[in-house]
Amino acid sequence: MITMLLHADHVLTMDPANQVIADGAVAIEGDRIAAVGPAAELRTRYAGVPVRRLTNRLLMPGLVNAHLHSGLLRGTAEGLPVWDWLRMYIDPMHRVLRPEDAEAASFLCYAEAVLSGTTTVVDMWRYMQGSARAAEQIGNRTVMVPYVGEHPDYDYFDHLDDTEALLESWHGGAQGRVEVWVGLEHAFYATEAAHTRAIALAQKFGTGFHTHSNEAEVELREMQRRYGCRSIPALEKLGLLEAPRTLLAHCVWLDDDEIALLARRGVAVAHNPTSNMKLASGAAPVAKLRRAGVAVGIGTDGEKENNNLDMFEEMKFTSLLAKFASLDAAAMPAWDVLRMATIEGARAIGKDDEIGSLERGKKADLIALRTDTPRLTPLFGGVDGNLHHNLVHAVRGGDVDLTMVDGRIIVEDGQLKTADMTDLIARVHEVVPGLFFRRAAWLAKHTDGAISPIGRD
Amino acid sequence: MITMLLHADHVLTMDPANQVIADGAVAIEGDRIAAVGPAAELRTRYAGVPVRRLTNRLLMPGLVNAHLHSGLLRGTAEGLPVWDWLRMYIDPMHRVLRPEDAEAASFLCYAEAVLSGTTTVVDMWRYMQGSARAAEQIGNRTVMVPYVGEHPDYDYFDHLDDTEALLESWHGGAQGRVEVWVGLEHAFYATEAAHTRAIALAQKFGTGFHTHSNEAEVELREMQRRYGCRSIPALEKLGLLEAPRTLLAHCVWLDDDEIALLARRGVAVAHNPTSNMKLASGAAPVAKLRRAGVAVGIGTDGEKENNNLDMFEEMKFTSLLAKFASLDAAAMPAWDVLRMATIEGARAIGKDDEIGSLERGKKADLIALRTDTPRLTPLFGGVDGNLHHNLVHAVRGGDVDLTMVDGRIIVEDGQLKTADMTDLIARVHEVVPGLFFRRAAWLAKHTDGAISPIGRD
Repeated sequence: MITMLLHADHVLTMDPANQVIADGAVAIEGDRIAAVGPAAELRTRYAGVPVRRLTNRLLMPGLVNAHLHSGLLRGTAEGLPVWDWLRMYIDPMHRVLRPEDAEAASFLCYAEAVLSGTTTVVDMWRYMQGSARAAEQIGNRTVMVPYVGEHPDYDYFDHLDDTEALLESWHGGAQGRVEVWVGLEHAFYATEAAHTRAIALAQKFGTGFHTHSNEAEVELREMQRRYGCRSIPALEKLGLLEAPRTLLAHCVWLDDDEIALLARRGVAVAHNPTSNMKLASGAAPVAKLRRAGVAVGIGTDGEKENNNLDMFEEMKFTSLLAKFASLDAAAMPAWDVLRMATIEGARAIGKDDEIGSLERGKKADLIALRTDTPRLTPLFGGVDGNLHHNLVHAVRGGDVDLTMVDGRIIVEDGQLKTADMTDLIARVHEVVPGLFFRRAAWLAKHTDGAISPIGRD
Repeated sequence: MITMLLHADHVLTMDPANQVIADGAVAIEGDRIAAVGPAAELRTRYAGVPVRRLTNRLLMPGLVNAHLHSGLLRGTAEGLPVWDWLRMYIDPMHRVLRPEDAEAASFLCYAEAVLSGTTTVVDMWRYMQGSARAAEQIGNRTVMVPYVGEHPDYDYFDHLDDTEALLESWHGGAQGRVEVWVGLEHAFYATEAAHTRAIALAQKFGTGFHTHSNEAEVELREMQRRYGCRSIPALEKLGLLEAPRTLLAHCVWLDDDEIALLARRGVAVAHNPTSNMKLASGAAPVAKLRRAGVAVGIGTDGEKENNNLDMFEEMKFTSLLAKFASLDAAAMPAWDVLRMATIEGARAIGKDDEIGSLERGKKADLIALRTDTPRLTPLFGGVDGNLHHNLVHAVRGGDVDLTMVDGRIIVEDGQLKTADMTDLIARVHEVVPGLFFRRAAWLAKHTDGAISPIGRD
């Protein structure tokens, strides 16, 4: 039974033709899209069904954030390149993080995501029973990937036992909105026995494997030293590409053989341009990856690398970094960027049959954003208009005022409906002093104390 | 007489010490700041003065957008490098632009600016009597620079006669909020006689000179061909650095001698990182310029190059482009970026004694932004906290909910108080079809018609 018609001035379908329907509508049947088409047609076909008329609004699929970490360090871990930054700010935080901190972080980050138009997140984080509760309450769709270290030198993360427990308790939970994958912080944060167990777990549960790879040059040198080859062939040799699906974050430093190998093995990539610029990692060869057929999604990375989780802004960085790095203003056309943030992101996590476009039969994961803003003026609709260029380069997450996941409205009039934002912020402020205090204490004991617990400059 | 106290949770002064006052206040006396300090102290000192308590808000100086063009082409001029893009999209627009189009553009762009926290804009645009009317009504502070070509090959811009008329009618107008400078689209868009007249005009009125320079490699080759040297020495040789003050937009391709020459001549630079990335121009040597003592402001460039006018976003691009281009995550600290967007931008236009920081005696040009957002959580105030990092990297213009210029509130609760946004948008949509039609007709007559009038890809 059709439960609702959403009628908007523009419907950006992200279907294979990038169809944009002027004065369009989406018919919702429970958690699914029953039809997409001209409003006049759908309003006739479904006469009597309640209509939500979204005036001066554009409907589009909810965005897929292909790589982030819930977190609490926003703006407190600045000005260092990635491996120094990990050693000074991030790893000590992991050593002292508690489940209640981690849960508060996921509540905040999922709220920020849905408020800015993201309906699906791939979250690598800690103590993810709390994250699952956050996803259940906030109402977003989540691929949860416990942040695992299984190595004597990196023993301060979650463990594969936690992953297995989470798979057993939450995989497919929250009415199917929560999916659990197997993750490692990095290949060399785990022993070879752990590699074997990680992939066996992914195979047993028919789920995915996610890790960071080829982010920084220093990491490639370390992989070379340990395994005698570059990172992607090393992952293959270690058996880490044998899960039912694999998603690698970053992939900045890739040679052509590695790109071919990723394509051959059907491995997907999460591109994080803001993080790669901010941590001075470099520019991923996104155009080459896409030409090779690799599914490339876009991720914000965490609040500490970015410092927000706005996928609209991330689209702009995706476009501009590609143009700048190649000194080619025609690089990375806007439609390609929009596809990466929606349907290609869905393909990167194996869910393009379910989400990522507004098409009949798919999950009703969609957003509406304001078009009556200077940022979208003038507006020429249609596939040849200027809408797609401005969605990538002008619109920001704050322009989103309705977010629906599984047919349920979780953001309305720009307000979170599923939790009290004031409470979520207060909860973060309750836990962070303790977290920073414990981190400072750990640092004072284990370093020369030269690093401020908050940040620098 | 003190007319109002603004009392906020945090006051970011941008004074020489980058002082941040927790629970601070700003006392307003007409169009000026009478005092800045702890709220308790000011509320006692000025007992009886009406207090506006800005809960969960941060007060800071309004941002200075050091280079933009009002415009109507947002998202319709995409995917070409700068000089091709000028020839195909922009120059033909200038040929057919009418005063009513230009005025509608300024109303829209100034509204967008003040809604996103910018109080002062340097606008190079056409038919600027209309822009002056827009600035008068919207309430922003504006340096108006008519977009002039004075050359038989570039005869489709404003002319120095227009500049002179504007200087006579509007310089110092709108209660001093409108200042008129002399501008040229580019040095080689004018004859040497016009160069002489331009500078004489600036000297006569004691005002500034603004033009584009060193944006693209192709331009340097052309300057070399015409004048036998690189661009900055050419400007000097042509007498174009003799105005009371000079501001050059872009300055991407500079050698060390040119940087030294800019410093020696006290020439300021407007850095436009988004535009430089989007048009694949390159990365300006901002750190070198600042080390040499050059005042570097930040500009969004126009709606067609960016595609929004959000100076908060521009700060993030300033930070991240510097980090990426140098592969140094410590490059361009957040405080430096904030100074460039405020007090340094003011210095770049010779107004740092009047605006750019919250200090006693300065103009009351300030903004308040929401701190009760995920983007600013967690929040650690003070000069060593994380506020500055997140103002640059997390906050966006949409978080601004109060804008004051000259002591007058022109944006309140995130809404423009001085004009009806719906009318401004409607006015743009009234004029753009004609503008695009005339441009398409011109292009059909003067090219092979291969360029779409709207855009491409």
